[in-house]
Amino acid sequence: MGRVSVTDQQALVDFRTEPARYRHWHLVVDGPVATLTMDVDEAGGLAPGYELKLNSYDLGVDIELYDAVQRLRFEHPEVTAVVLTSGKDKVFCAGANIRMLAGAPHPWKVNFCKFTNETRNGIEDATENSGQTWLAAVNGTASGGGYELALACEHIMLIDDRSSAVSLPELPLLGVLPGTGGLTRLTDKRHVRRDIADYVATRPEGVGGSKAVAWRLVDEAVPRARWAETVATRAAELAARSARPAGLRGVELTPLPKNRTGTDIGYRHVTARLDRPAGVAEIAVSGPDSDAPADVAALYEQGTGYWSLAVARELDDLILDLRTNELELGTWVLRTRGDPHRVLAHDGLLLAHRDDWLAAEIIGYWKRTLKRLDVTSRSLIALVEPGSCFAGSMLELALAADRSYMLDGVLEESDQRQAGPAVITVGELNLGPLPGGNGLTRLQTRFWGDEAGLAAVEKRAGEPLEAQDADQLGLVTFAPDDIDWAEEVRIAIEERASFSPDALTGMEASYRFAGPETMETKIFGRLTAWQNWIFYRPNASGPDGALRRYGSGRRAEFDRKRV
Amino acid sequence: MGRVSVTDQQALVDFRTEPARYRHWHLVVDGPVATLTMDVDEAGGLAPGYELKLNSYDLGVDIELYDAVQRLRFEHPEVTAVVLTSGKDKVFCAGANIRMLAGAPHPWKVNFCKFTNETRNGIEDATENSGQTWLAAVNGTASGGGYELALACEHIMLIDDRSSAVSLPELPLLGVLPGTGGLTRLTDKRHVRRDIADYVATRPEGVGGSKAVAWRLVDEAVPRARWAETVATRAAELAARSARPAGLRGVELTPLPKNRTGTDIGYRHVTARLDRPAGVAEIAVSGPDSDAPADVAALYEQGTGYWSLAVARELDDLILDLRTNELELGTWVLRTRGDPHRVLAHDGLLLAHRDDWLAAEIIGYWKRTLKRLDVTSRSLIALVEPGSCFAGSMLELALAADRSYMLDGVLEESDQRQAGPAVITVGELNLGPLPGGNGLTRLQTRFWGDEAGLAAVEKRAGEPLEAQDADQLGLVTFAPDDIDWAEEVRIAIEERASFSPDALTGMEASYRFAGPETMETKIFGRLTAWQNWIFYRPNASGPDGALRRYGSGRRAEFDRKRV
Repeated sequence: MGRVSVTDQQALVDFRTEPARYRHWHLVVDGPVATLTMDVDEAGGLAPGYELKLNSYDLGVDIELYDAVQRLRFEHPEVTAVVLTSGKDKVFCAGANIRMLAGAPHPWKVNFCKFTNETRNGIEDATENSGQTWLAAVNGTASGGGYELALACEHIMLIDDRSSAVSLPELPLLGVLPGTGGLTRLTDKRHVRRDIADYVATRPEGVGGSKAVAWRLVDEAVPRARWAETVATRAAELAARSARPAGLRGVELTPLPKNRTGTDIGYRHVTARLDRPAGVAEIAVSGPDSDAPADVAALYEQGTGYWSLAVARELDDLILDLRTNELELGTWVLRTRGDPHRVLAHDGLLLAHRDDWLAAEIIGYWKRTLKRLDVTSRSLIALVEPGSCFAGSMLELALAADRSYMLDGVLEESDQRQAGPAVITVGELNLGPLPGGNGLTRLQTRFWGDEAGLAAVEKRAGEPLEAQDADQLGLVTFAPDDIDWAEEVRIAIEERASFSPDALTGMEASYRFAGPETMETKIFGRLTAWQNWIFYRPNASGPDGALRRYGSGRRAEFDRKRV
Repeated sequence: MGRVSVTDQQALVDFRTEPARYRHWHLVVDGPVATLTMDVDEAGGLAPGYELKLNSYDLGVDIELYDAVQRLRFEHPEVTAVVLTSGKDKVFCAGANIRMLAGAPHPWKVNFCKFTNETRNGIEDATENSGQTWLAAVNGTASGGGYELALACEHIMLIDDRSSAVSLPELPLLGVLPGTGGLTRLTDKRHVRRDIADYVATRPEGVGGSKAVAWRLVDEAVPRARWAETVATRAAELAARSARPAGLRGVELTPLPKNRTGTDIGYRHVTARLDRPAGVAEIAVSGPDSDAPADVAALYEQGTGYWSLAVARELDDLILDLRTNELELGTWVLRTRGDPHRVLAHDGLLLAHRDDWLAAEIIGYWKRTLKRLDVTSRSLIALVEPGSCFAGSMLELALAADRSYMLDGVLEESDQRQAGPAVITVGELNLGPLPGGNGLTRLQTRFWGDEAGLAAVEKRAGEPLEAQDADQLGLVTFAPDDIDWAEEVRIAIEERASFSPDALTGMEASYRFAGPETMETKIFGRLTAWQNWIFYRPNASGPDGALRRYGSGRRAEFDRKRV
């Protein structure tokens, strides 16, 4: 974690880090139980102008947390319970740093909340799908984002010492909402009654002890004298719930090679060309350059070199980089190149060994990376051209896109002629293992309410489909031929850049989550939208707003009109 | 519809109207088929500064539409199909008036969208629950809100004349989202594929003819030569679907008596005291002042005089009045007074005759009025005091509130002593017939995830519950006694007024819709929130924004940063 400089760019946020470089967290693994201790370095803020007091966090702190969650999954499969606790006395975590938030521009606030939300969802996903149950050992006051961090854990223990409490003071003190799903998790996850939840969210001093238990805000309150022992007992119990076999050995997440200039980002399999005048990032993903190994042992040998894992890491980093550092590249054009058979074979090895923890983790990583794409406020346009490999995992990129264009035939005046017409292939990975935030596969979302359309597609799984078939089946938006291709694609991309970026964000957030809703889509769709608005209003962010005046000793001045 | 003036207030919007005063609509009833023709008077805008060209609408136009929907339900039960069409040549409806929107302050925009959404949901509700199926006979171009109006109908016919089209031009032309559920209805109701929906919402010229049918944007495209005949045929077919018996006679919605001053609003059963310094509206609802009649015939005799119908009308009007005209009254305190037995008896007559159309309509009106309360951006605090009648339909007011306070015992120094301690009574109306927008009863939402808690409450249905019982069962938030009551209530109300109004709006919108989501909650919760944000941003509403520059011949200038 930190900032890298390139010649023609301001300081850029780098999401790559590793435990040896952590400034804010300690990770200790002891058999099946890992303990992740938050001990924020006050002077370690990502930007100048604020001190990270009371275990408050900024993006830099959260980047390390995300890294720890990922390393626990891949490097420590033997861990089946994770204790999240604080290294400070009487303070668990004070949430997002207020001075950082008050001074940050609007897009930064929104991006920051998005990433922290993704990390907390990732913690829940680890509990649910990786057999690593997270336990919040709240050994001091947990306020705001600090309590929300605990809410992402499966079990919450609060030290019962007459001063420690959990609270959501955002509304009364800052005039904003809890930014990482606190409201939704209170009612929808912990089943706190909504009027009690209302009261809690207006009471800055919070709730502790037996009342916090009675109101379901925490699962147990434990006296200081029995704290360490009870945490250890509970961690052991949760660890024992895992169905994972003992003695698993992890795979090291080796440093991710990346070249970045002001105009290009390059990894081993993924590249992005940053076309600033057009406001476009041209992203290309390469398929495997060799055949898939025959057995699962090779997966362990290759480790992060296995194509599927390598691409997931590269895409994950690229999405975060562009989202955070390149706000004006509003359209991402997605291309693939390579051999679709090799993609399907690499997918296939994972699918054939889904009971193997590593294969399952790689699929899970794809799932989360695609979800990150889904909540990215950029227009996504997939181009399916000759020589591409939109099959299985790679096809998900096209299915995640807001629109897709597939060339019908070949371009007469192109090198691509030799490759023959583009095909897309529906694979097993498209039919279940990679659900989006709404709990549906992207194909199910696409064909929401059209069972016949979905069934027709499923029937053709495994078959390379040329443009006319793909178009008729509804797998691509448009399938122009040689004559129209260049013009149609150019217009689509240029037009996108001419629209209001805000309206695009709202529209895309609506369409990408058609159909049913889940806690996750509520957090990203509803809460995010409200928070965006609230953050933007002078009542929060104006010079007299609550967020800006916090800590000044002066009360905020509100425009009292209710909207 | 129109504006009434009171001495110490600016012009106020009045939501009461009747067909004889319509300026923009014609309602013709011909046996089982009603035809509602939109023919907007260009000069009939609610405010100066814009002309309602091309059947565009403002709040005044929509107030008449709402009145027509209501009158069709109550005054014309013999109608089983409603044809919604235009009286203009080649234009169905151009949607919300852009100049009105561009010039309106932010709260007005948001309130306007909310009311139009409610009316469109009411049209869908009439199709689903009142046996009145709405048919959009789109006899010209339907743009933006005009197409969204058609989307609220069960069946959409589009004239196929090579110029008429349906479109959602808000994003490309105005830099905002369609404001009345268009995005959600495309994917979730009409099952338009999301990439096609994306394309449609970026194409200002829209889609007509067979392509509109193929993309499911309309149900049929009909040539002009066969238009009138086909509309009539389709209307007759839809009318015949209704299970309602023939020969029903309606109940007249007589003019609603109302006294309004700058400090008080008074109806027959409902009053509101407007406490501007405190930012509070003190609302009181009186129970029936006589016993319920013994049979359903009396319901017809009493008509709008029947207590349940009268109170629904008064509450409906009051909610709209306060929401639109009193933006700075941020907290509504809800009280009732009267005999709970009489409330339950009036509810009971309706419930015993739910197969009677009028009884069903009155229950349905309560349902929609309570939903209107649910989406109202004001803090709702219910006070349950001696002499109150929070039972059945009246109890829903407390269950809709963000918090409720119930006095445990009586106030020693009060006239209320004689009434004995307050009770609340769960009635049959609380257990199913009045679901909120999320499809759950307010009790189900309250006990979301707590089946045992809900079952315990259901077991006590019909029993008058004093404060300690009500508190233990989780039916009220707090139950202070004589000593604490005044102080606790005062603090709750004063505190509310001290918080950020924006953050309260966001929090309340989250908590009121715990649990599952529906198309309705998505429209109010998610789309509204995005639209609030987009409307507020300079990219739409700033001097160089798309909404303000529309029609000026100058393109909008955007801050291109994606958020």
